[in-house]
Amino acid sequence: MAFGTVDVEVIAALRAALDKGDLLSAQEDMLHYGHDETEDLVHPPEVVVRPRTTEEVVRIVKVCAAHHIPITPIGGRTGLSGGALCVHGGVGLALDRMDRIEHIDEQNLQVTVQPGVITQVLMDAVAAKGLYYAPDPSSKGSCTIGGNLAENAGGPRAVKYGVTRDFVLNLEVVLASGEVIWTGANTLKNATGYDLTRLIVGSEGTLGVITKAVLRLIPMPKASRLMLVPFNSAVQACEAVSAVFRAGITPSALEFMERDAIDFTMRHVEGIAIAVPDDVQAHLLIEVDGLHDDVLMRECETILGVMEAHDCGEVLFAETAAEKDALWKLRRNVPVAVKAHTIYKEEDTVVPRYALPQLLAGVKAIGKAHGFRSICYGHAGDGNLHINIIKEGVSDDYWKNGLPIAIRELFALTVSLGGTISGEHGIGLVQRPYMDIAFDRTQLDLMRGIKQLFDPQGIMNPGKVLPEG
Amino acid sequence: MAFGTVDVEVIAALRAALDKGDLLSAQEDMLHYGHDETEDLVHPPEVVVRPRTTEEVVRIVKVCAAHHIPITPIGGRTGLSGGALCVHGGVGLALDRMDRIEHIDEQNLQVTVQPGVITQVLMDAVAAKGLYYAPDPSSKGSCTIGGNLAENAGGPRAVKYGVTRDFVLNLEVVLASGEVIWTGANTLKNATGYDLTRLIVGSEGTLGVITKAVLRLIPMPKASRLMLVPFNSAVQACEAVSAVFRAGITPSALEFMERDAIDFTMRHVEGIAIAVPDDVQAHLLIEVDGLHDDVLMRECETILGVMEAHDCGEVLFAETAAEKDALWKLRRNVPVAVKAHTIYKEEDTVVPRYALPQLLAGVKAIGKAHGFRSICYGHAGDGNLHINIIKEGVSDDYWKNGLPIAIRELFALTVSLGGTISGEHGIGLVQRPYMDIAFDRTQLDLMRGIKQLFDPQGIMNPGKVLPEG
Repeated sequence: MAFGTVDVEVIAALRAALDKGDLLSAQEDMLHYGHDETEDLVHPPEVVVRPRTTEEVVRIVKVCAAHHIPITPIGGRTGLSGGALCVHGGVGLALDRMDRIEHIDEQNLQVTVQPGVITQVLMDAVAAKGLYYAPDPSSKGSCTIGGNLAENAGGPRAVKYGVTRDFVLNLEVVLASGEVIWTGANTLKNATGYDLTRLIVGSEGTLGVITKAVLRLIPMPKASRLMLVPFNSAVQACEAVSAVFRAGITPSALEFMERDAIDFTMRHVEGIAIAVPDDVQAHLLIEVDGLHDDVLMRECETILGVMEAHDCGEVLFAETAAEKDALWKLRRNVPVAVKAHTIYKEEDTVVPRYALPQLLAGVKAIGKAHGFRSICYGHAGDGNLHINIIKEGVSDDYWKNGLPIAIRELFALTVSLGGTISGEHGIGLVQRPYMDIAFDRTQLDLMRGIKQLFDPQGIMNPGKVLPEG
Repeated sequence: MAFGTVDVEVIAALRAALDKGDLLSAQEDMLHYGHDETEDLVHPPEVVVRPRTTEEVVRIVKVCAAHHIPITPIGGRTGLSGGALCVHGGVGLALDRMDRIEHIDEQNLQVTVQPGVITQVLMDAVAAKGLYYAPDPSSKGSCTIGGNLAENAGGPRAVKYGVTRDFVLNLEVVLASGEVIWTGANTLKNATGYDLTRLIVGSEGTLGVITKAVLRLIPMPKASRLMLVPFNSAVQACEAVSAVFRAGITPSALEFMERDAIDFTMRHVEGIAIAVPDDVQAHLLIEVDGLHDDVLMRECETILGVMEAHDCGEVLFAETAAEKDALWKLRRNVPVAVKAHTIYKEEDTVVPRYALPQLLAGVKAIGKAHGFRSICYGHAGDGNLHINIIKEGVSDDYWKNGLPIAIRELFALTVSLGGTISGEHGIGLVQRPYMDIAFDRTQLDLMRGIKQLFDPQGIMNPGKVLPEG
């Protein structure tokens, strides 16, 4: 499909569409807005607009619709699937100036936000009122609520509290026609017509632009306990995960790190030092939270019993806030270390949690057969394994032409285990060629029909999610 | 739209489509399958088929598609919005023989079921393994999982655990074309393409027939505490509800019953006797559950403090299992009593929970202005108020021609408070004329487009959810 050109007429129309917002067109700005955290990819827009209001978004969308220009919403640019990359140029719709927390409703435990609010900023603002917004992607310090909604982001706490989708009540969306809708109501229950709210969540800006969100809040947990549990066998670690839930405990985080992940992180990130005996092959980081510390102590005892029954090594309990921070720093820095020190591809596999050992073993076997190294870690409680395939030691040719074959094997394994190809990063650009592994033609055609219904011109974030028909 | 006729040729084709299932055509069977719990409405199918397998459903759908015959899926016939009524005749697709629990996966805490499994049967089967399926509509003893999914059913425990939607991982669906899809994956997290799973949930059989579901399970809570709290003011009761959450407690049920609901129930149901002082205007029924009884005692103390701060009367704690059963029996029998003793219309309003007092006051004011009596009760923790408008004392003419005007006022109030017209019963047949209050033309046209995409012939449960365009 041929798109229109961002010419002087379009630029003038976009300028006229803005009153409080601004427009950028300098080369350096295009490069800034042209990348996120996805590999080393850069796809700059032709122009960036930064609206401050829904009305401005409406006018921008109408200009683009009239000139058949692609619109790619851009949030905190922390995405890992390339959802915000402007692969067809066009207008980069940066939502970073729509960053108001409009209303924290303490009586109904709801908050109304614009999409550009940084997740951590929202968490802090509601925490000041004793409330909790739980979805906490690793990038929470710089990612935005709009991006979280677009990708249906998760994070460590999803295992207890759910993902972004589970905290959304209602969304204001600017459609490709420039019309504005609310998708639902500001209620905890809703059985009124088709669920447009959850159709928009995870649709990665391909069905419309989220300009406002009403989110659910919960009471703030008052205490937490954290422990790091080493295992000689990654398989044993994964089996222990499943057993924790069967023991009646739902941890607030249950993270997995293979040996290589910890070694790599300690080598590359300063100020992290944990003694890891030679025979340790994997760690679980387990957190419980709640209202009463004595209850958490009891839960920790139950968890400890489960871990010991699975032949864990010596458990490290974080005794102080500083020790907790150090353990979380270790976990959070695994992807940071990988990303800072090598070109990589990150796959976001997810399986039923008991299938994790099979997935991990399969990943390593595929890597061995294809000659690449991977560093695996992730949200074991959810069966969500992040596989970082690192470029070190692999030829450029293999990286470009050989690796996609290995990745297809890896996703085929994931799907054969009852899983799918993205747990929390979305499909975006880079997973799009693999959608046929998760879905057959019938399912994809339904999704294409939905896309066609919402965006008949195909201007909303083109080149994402759905493979060519 | 004119549908085909269920003639001898169609009957023969339907018979040929069945191998293990059966076909009914006797007049009494049509009447049996032609009503649910919605008012006194009867809309019989022309023929009932009762398949046992997905393959049979596929063949039935293909026969109907070829002859342009309406297909209405029928579950436990406990619906309150008329979703299973065969308003255009045609084929009643009774799923009561597809009642197998195929696999309880204790390692992944998942269960795979056919749609005809009765909700309570599922709850009992997983409870025997220490697991919990939480969504518990009042009709759980006779409603089915398929119906719960179709209507996105809730129930008292939704306030803590979520509604049916929140327990679904993956659905097998027979489309109007006869094609079979799975909507997602058997995983807790999923960010892979548009969320077809949640598009099907709550779509009331208008987009396809759910033939299998993979549901999430959680560890079984081991203890619970229950209390009944009287208030002199319904408004004070509703305000106390909001304060409980702000105190950091998420009860496993937080039910509201106005004075009339209790009086009506005690008058009409045997074996329920609770002393209700003359000045009591409303009751809250509050349950907490968890792993440790001592923790629940502490939570009860916190709740008691909140209740006393809102001028409650003398709190009744259920000390024994028998006392708990008696209090739940009282609550569950409110709708039973209403339904057994008068013609009624039940509205399923939902608002942000702090708006409940305003909704309740508005309902009473509208009733007074229009001259009807209502009995209100429901899931106060979710802001979900069931309004039973009773026919006693109202003329047939007003019931038919006047009441819809009052109901429009009532729903307009609900929507103006940030709420919507159905929290957990669905839209079905009887709320369909009011959809324009919750949604404008743009939203309804998107929903109509989705319907058209999934069911271009319009044979899947026609006459439901969406008003004529």
